[in-house]
Amino acid sequence: MGSALAAAFLDRGHPTTVWNRSPEKAKALAERGAHVAATPEEAVAAAELVIACVLDYDALHTVVDPVAARLAGRTLVNATSGSPEQAREFEGWADAHDVAYLDGAVMTTPPGVGNPDMMFLYSGSEQAFETYRGALEVLGDPLYLGADPGVASLYDAALLGVMWSTFTGWLHGTALVGADGVAATDFTELANRWLGGAVHSFLTRYAGQVDEGRYPGDDATVDVQIATIDHLIHAAADRGVDNALPELLKATMERTRDAGHGGDSYASVIEVMRGSSRV
Amino acid sequence: MGSALAAAFLDRGHPTTVWNRSPEKAKALAERGAHVAATPEEAVAAAELVIACVLDYDALHTVVDPVAARLAGRTLVNATSGSPEQAREFEGWADAHDVAYLDGAVMTTPPGVGNPDMMFLYSGSEQAFETYRGALEVLGDPLYLGADPGVASLYDAALLGVMWSTFTGWLHGTALVGADGVAATDFTELANRWLGGAVHSFLTRYAGQVDEGRYPGDDATVDVQIATIDHLIHAAADRGVDNALPELLKATMERTRDAGHGGDSYASVIEVMRGSSRV
Repeated sequence: MGSALAAAFLDRGHPTTVWNRSPEKAKALAERGAHVAATPEEAVAAAELVIACVLDYDALHTVVDPVAARLAGRTLVNATSGSPEQAREFEGWADAHDVAYLDGAVMTTPPGVGNPDMMFLYSGSEQAFETYRGALEVLGDPLYLGADPGVASLYDAALLGVMWSTFTGWLHGTALVGADGVAATDFTELANRWLGGAVHSFLTRYAGQVDEGRYPGDDATVDVQIATIDHLIHAAADRGVDNALPELLKATMERTRDAGHGGDSYASVIEVMRGSSRV
Repeated sequence: MGSALAAAFLDRGHPTTVWNRSPEKAKALAERGAHVAATPEEAVAAAELVIACVLDYDALHTVVDPVAARLAGRTLVNATSGSPEQAREFEGWADAHDVAYLDGAVMTTPPGVGNPDMMFLYSGSEQAFETYRGALEVLGDPLYLGADPGVASLYDAALLGVMWSTFTGWLHGTALVGADGVAATDFTELANRWLGGAVHSFLTRYAGQVDEGRYPGDDATVDVQIATIDHLIHAAADRGVDNALPELLKATMERTRDAGHGGDSYASVIEVMRGSSRV
């Protein structure tokens, strides 16, 4: 990922200095015009904007602790994966060393870096974000989520959770229709349209309900969903498709109903999810 | 739902005859110009295209069995929910009575009927679909899925499974970020963009992999996802958010890894999902 970030800057003609623990990783970048620093200190000294992307926060401290004095007065954008708590702790370190701090979450795989449609999430110093927004646009679409540096990684985890849930539900559906000879490609065209259409609309409406704490059931109640999911479970069972996921979804709906939300919308599932009315 | 279907035809000025077991349900439609039939026989006799939408297949047989002779030579579109097997069985009944049969799945709630963006899935007689495509466009976007009448309801179940999975993953993420004060509306704007962007692209690419039966891991292997999902599980556990869903997703990924797909893409999860390499 670090190489992809550096390559995006080089591709747009930004003077870029790179450093990696394994010098051979920098070679390909040198061929694209990167200046290869011999030490982290030399890399940090080369620019006002410093981007760090390493394995974890231990590795981050190993690299930046010895060069803290050099980082003073500069901006550090940290694309290292970690928890919100680690990002908050690290902001304390940055504050103590007079380093402007932005925590970043890259919402794409390396080949997506440089694509302006891809989301790059940032939280922490708003001034740092505004100052370097133009440079960060080289990587993708920079979105500022607020002064709490933990928020970018919290969104990161939550969005990946949405992705894995959608992936797994989609693979279950793909296996189901595939058992009757439907190609994955055919099903997926409709699944994507479904996600971008009806599902998108429901999420938008349900988000408002969550914020209001009221879940009018209207046309699609939890009770109705519980009745309907049996069609899915039976069809999948008949075809030998693993039903662990839909069984869990049904159990979650039933817990929601048992908590008194049978006549409410699916958004009320959040009440058992966050444990505020656990039964 | 039956009322919404009839109302859509009336709104576009189509002469429409309605019948319901409970006559009072037809009253509002009569005020909008519907002819109210006194019996199923009268309703069936009124037009070449007959649309049935009742509770289940038992109710359907109760209504249509006595009027089979009247249905002969007409087209029956059946929007009653049921299993693929029930649709296939019913086509047998229709064939035996010289009725052209289309099975339909309405991929929206009643307020969405009449919206041309909404998907209406049909399978069964292609000739019936082509003959009445224009009329069916009144209800939404009619999509023909093939001659097997069971396919529409199979897609219906599979797409609802995708919806519930996405809903539940989204509510988990919403509860997670909500614990740190992020509004559901703010998170959902990004979640929808994520689903329509990166997730959409992954599904399209992974569908091709499923059809080919090869799952090159490239930039995002199952092993990497297993390592990453712990960030989500820990962050949610720290905030008291129910982790049943991500724990199931992780266990599914681990089964996939144990089946030999650790270096493959997430699409390889389908191998354990459909039981072809169950461990």
